[in-house]
Amino acid sequence: MGRVVVDVMLKPEILDPQGRAVQGALGRLGLAGVADVRQGKQFIIDLDGELDDERWALLERLAGELLSNPVIEDYRIRRDQDGQ
Amino acid sequence: MGRVVVDVMLKPEILDPQGRAVQGALGRLGLAGVADVRQGKQFIIDLDGELDDERWALLERLAGELLSNPVIEDYRIRRDQDGQ
Repeated sequence: MGRVVVDVMLKPEILDPQGRAVQGALGRLGLAGVADVRQGKQFIIDLDGELDDERWALLERLAGELLSNPVIEDYRIRRDQDGQ
Repeated sequence: MGRVVVDVMLKPEILDPQGRAVQGALGRLGLAGVADVRQGKQFIIDLDGELDDERWALLERLAGELLSNPVIEDYRIRRDQDGQ
């Protein structure tokens, strides 16, 4: 069984009001010097069987089309070797 | 400047309807053998100045109390060395 992790984050030029709210809250709760906070999504996908090149290519396409919105979001996909 | 990444995920025993919906969609779009999908949140926190032990301890506490709901969620916090 393999595990794949997809991180989806708003593109840098897109305003992130959730991240901004968290940034403000961290400051009010005593953490000084928070320059920026961005909030994104993370998908942990567990797969049965071999993760061959074909499945990987399909997963990568779906990460860009299903799991993220290419107009406003970037994604990063990686195999998670140690299950962390 | 340092970067800290906090991943927040529903505890394994908590039902994850969003993850379940993604699992179904991946299957319908041709990806066979998806055993499980969990959807969580990711916070990328950029900090000015030195990230000493005191600030790290505060960040860790806030990750558990502000960024995640300890009743239903687990969090993982890490320094991000290469900015990835």
